[in-house]
Amino acid sequence: MPTLLQRVHQAIRRQQLCEPGSRVLVGLSGGADSVALTLLLRDLAAEGDVVLAGLVHVHHGLRATADRDEAFCRALAARLALPLEVERADVRGVAAREGRSLEDAARRLRYLLLARAAERLGADRVAVAHTLDDQAETVLLRLVRGAGLTGAAGIHPRRGQVIRPLLGVSRAELRAELAARGEPWVEDESNADLANPRSRVRHRVLPELDRVLGAPVAPALARAAALAGEDGAWLDALAGARVEALTRAMPGGLALDAVGLKAEPLPLRRRILRQVLRSRSPGREIGLEHVEAALDVLVGGRRGADVPGSRVELRPGKLVLLDKGAASDVVPAGSDPE
Amino acid sequence: MPTLLQRVHQAIRRQQLCEPGSRVLVGLSGGADSVALTLLLRDLAAEGDVVLAGLVHVHHGLRATADRDEAFCRALAARLALPLEVERADVRGVAAREGRSLEDAARRLRYLLLARAAERLGADRVAVAHTLDDQAETVLLRLVRGAGLTGAAGIHPRRGQVIRPLLGVSRAELRAELAARGEPWVEDESNADLANPRSRVRHRVLPELDRVLGAPVAPALARAAALAGEDGAWLDALAGARVEALTRAMPGGLALDAVGLKAEPLPLRRRILRQVLRSRSPGREIGLEHVEAALDVLVGGRRGADVPGSRVELRPGKLVLLDKGAASDVVPAGSDPE
Repeated sequence: MPTLLQRVHQAIRRQQLCEPGSRVLVGLSGGADSVALTLLLRDLAAEGDVVLAGLVHVHHGLRATADRDEAFCRALAARLALPLEVERADVRGVAAREGRSLEDAARRLRYLLLARAAERLGADRVAVAHTLDDQAETVLLRLVRGAGLTGAAGIHPRRGQVIRPLLGVSRAELRAELAARGEPWVEDESNADLANPRSRVRHRVLPELDRVLGAPVAPALARAAALAGEDGAWLDALAGARVEALTRAMPGGLALDAVGLKAEPLPLRRRILRQVLRSRSPGREIGLEHVEAALDVLVGGRRGADVPGSRVELRPGKLVLLDKGAASDVVPAGSDPE
Repeated sequence: MPTLLQRVHQAIRRQQLCEPGSRVLVGLSGGADSVALTLLLRDLAAEGDVVLAGLVHVHHGLRATADRDEAFCRALAARLALPLEVERADVRGVAAREGRSLEDAARRLRYLLLARAAERLGADRVAVAHTLDDQAETVLLRLVRGAGLTGAAGIHPRRGQVIRPLLGVSRAELRAELAARGEPWVEDESNADLANPRSRVRHRVLPELDRVLGAPVAPALARAAALAGEDGAWLDALAGARVEALTRAMPGGLALDAVGLKAEPLPLRRRILRQVLRSRSPGREIGLEHVEAALDVLVGGRRGADVPGSRVELRPGKLVLLDKGAASDVVPAGSDPE
């Protein structure tokens, strides 16, 4: 069995998370996962495999324990002799201003602040501590929220400069590692709040599923997510290659070759429509229900459909996506049975 | 909103579960789902949409309540003036003789006995009462058992002569329908036994997931399963079309063109290998881990791998699948680092 350090090293190499000479900044909350990530990357840095640029702690201001967490991170950084950036996130303010949920605002702000700290410390990678369990939770949450299975592809090991070297490691393994090293961490009380959907998945759903299987289910869920990610990425690429051939600009919108679109196999047809609808709706998510509505229009199941950014209608040989507002010129009021 | 009867009628038409003049036999356990299915199909038969050939009850002999269930089904059939076949299943005997789990033996035997009753009653379709909730449970069970997402494609609305017209209807809707009609049913106590994985998913996992979402999650899971089924079926067909071009018979086994196989995108490469391995291992399941092992051999990550039905090895330009037994002539003992 490879050691935990060897497995993290292998994940970084196999998934090409770093380049030679990459300078890595570590996101440190003070929780077990990010403390373990810090120590593991420090060991890899000592072996010359990566360069540790420093640590960054995002002070959310939402938790009663935020000051305690910051103090813990400052003490750890001092002990490890690593530079620490502390970023203050006005989550409530951003959520209110941008009309987002606290969870969504916190997530966006966190990645923004991590990127800012990376720039200040001259880092080209930001390592965050998502684990195998986070992956399993994400897959289940996306599934039940109706993302479809390809939507359930899960957390990526790398997105731009953000890398996640612990996606193959369970939380229990990280805690065991810290215990073995005699290293302390702080507990995030918000994780225990069952009003939080992710906490409920973590503390109620996954333990029940583990009982069903008689073993941890996180590896199977993570594996399913990885395979769905592979399938999805390839199908998306195939669909993307067809989009240009099938679409034509038209006054007030975009036209899709209806005959050509119908000739595509259903998995591609869905993805082509999704990509085209998405390109016309920056910032608003196109869901399965919008793709379904457009598909229904394509096969004549309904006269038209309103989706984010477009009014979808069928014309002879064409599925047209009209800019919102232009539609009212074309469709007599009340003509749509939907 | 269409009525429940209209929805079932629509499902039968859209998914082409029956042909004009189809004679349908209904599998009746006495539980709420199959009682509702019986009554709904009887209504459709009264409208001339299908012909009801009769009912079939499989007496499993496993449950303490089996005799009560049979009596209930006999009374219902008499009241509806429908022929009833009662089939006795020696589940324990079959499980012991064939080395199967009770659950697996019961399932196989049930479909065998349903087919036999269909033949006796001159039916060309056997309707069984799987619901939206069964679908959601199946998807979760397959996911956590490591089927991967395409494996989680779920229960099919039709397999041969077996049709499932209630896959889009929840158990709660069926019970409400029975309550509204003043129709009784019997409860299957084995459903409440939490030692049964499916019962645990039903009574513990799905209710927790419903709480996460604040609404029933079964529709999203069923939808995900349907989409995964579509993607998977198309990818399997693409892979199938490549299998012949890439394989050559050889003495003592089969050779795959390694260069051509490596040139395939990973989603197809996995499926090609799975199909080829499966064709050489009738009756023994090829799992993700066997496909992974063969992929590892293909890229030189290991010298060889033993999978059901084959010994996999890499030769110049070829991935060879050797018949089990022939391998020992080729591989010196102890040469495999695995």
